Amino acid sequence: MPEVDDRSFMDLALEEAKKAAGLGEVPIGAVLVSGDAVIRGHNRVIMDCDPTAHAEIVVMREAAKKMGNYRLVGSSLYVTLEPCIMCAGAIVQARVARLVYAAQDPRYGAVESMLKAFDFEVNHKPDICAGILKEEAGELLTKFFQARRNGGVPKWS
Amino acid sequence: MPEVDDRSFMDLALEEAKKAAGLGEVPIGAVLVSGDAVIRGHNRVIMDCDPTAHAEIVVMREAAKKMGNYRLVGSSLYVTLEPCIMCAGAIVQARVARLVYAAQDPRYGAVESMLKAFDFEVNHKPDICAGILKEEAGELLTKFFQARRNGGVPKWS
Repeated sequence: MPEVDDRSFMDLALEEAKKAAGLGEVPIGAVLVSGDAVIRGHNRVIMDCDPTAHAEIVVMREAAKKMGNYRLVGSSLYVTLEPCIMCAGAIVQARVARLVYAAQDPRYGAVESMLKAFDFEVNHKPDICAGILKEEAGELLTKFFQARRNGGVPKWS
Repeated sequence: MPEVDDRSFMDLALEEAKKAAGLGEVPIGAVLVSGDAVIRGHNRVIMDCDPTAHAEIVVMREAAKKMGNYRLVGSSLYVTLEPCIMCAGAIVQARVARLVYAAQDPRYGAVESMLKAFDFEVNHKPDICAGILKEEAGELLTKFFQARRNGGVPKWS
């Protein structure tokens, strides 16, 4: 069941995804909510030269540092695209309580698509809510890849 | 097929695992070899307060920074324990060419145990070699967890 603030937090994640696009990164954004703390971030693989710097991992790492705890017990993670295998595994490691994502990733998604990571005997399973603002999130990605294929710079109003 | 230097690099990874144990971290070590570069590291989840700081990710991140490329094309990754889901996914993201691991992780391993991540339609599959120095790597972990259960500090000669 979506919670009251899910749409607001996903809006923030979408803002982050747009920032990523403006920086030439694949437009995926994330927000980690833990108590009063709201940590926002986006995909930064190219700018950080870090293959693991997906939006989810960026906010989980920052939140863990901020909380002084590598386990983000009770936290909620919002992300604009279904997590990949790496990020699904990181969600397990960090003990994220609730995962909310927007668009499905039919090719590489590891929650409901290519693979259902949380259906295996992992040592933690988050609650999952999918589909909030999925059209907006999906459109961002589609436009970005279209623009990149055409050699143009995507514009986000 | 094991290569000539596999045993030497896994020995280095084992040294790293012992360092981790001495620091109170779960004793898992890794070595990333790319051309002439040999990057060593170990599990640092607690010391870095980072749920993603498994040995594999530590060396992949450092290697990417050093190489100035988030894709570690042509590289080999040595690790003392079968990678978890997160690390298997990171290996895909980083395009590691060859994965060599020592001990199997029957509970949470994501290569041959709990889950076979590379059997899915991932966008990169490394060559895999398992079992080199598996007894030594497994014994390190067993002793560490025994000592931790007993409240003692494990000693590594």
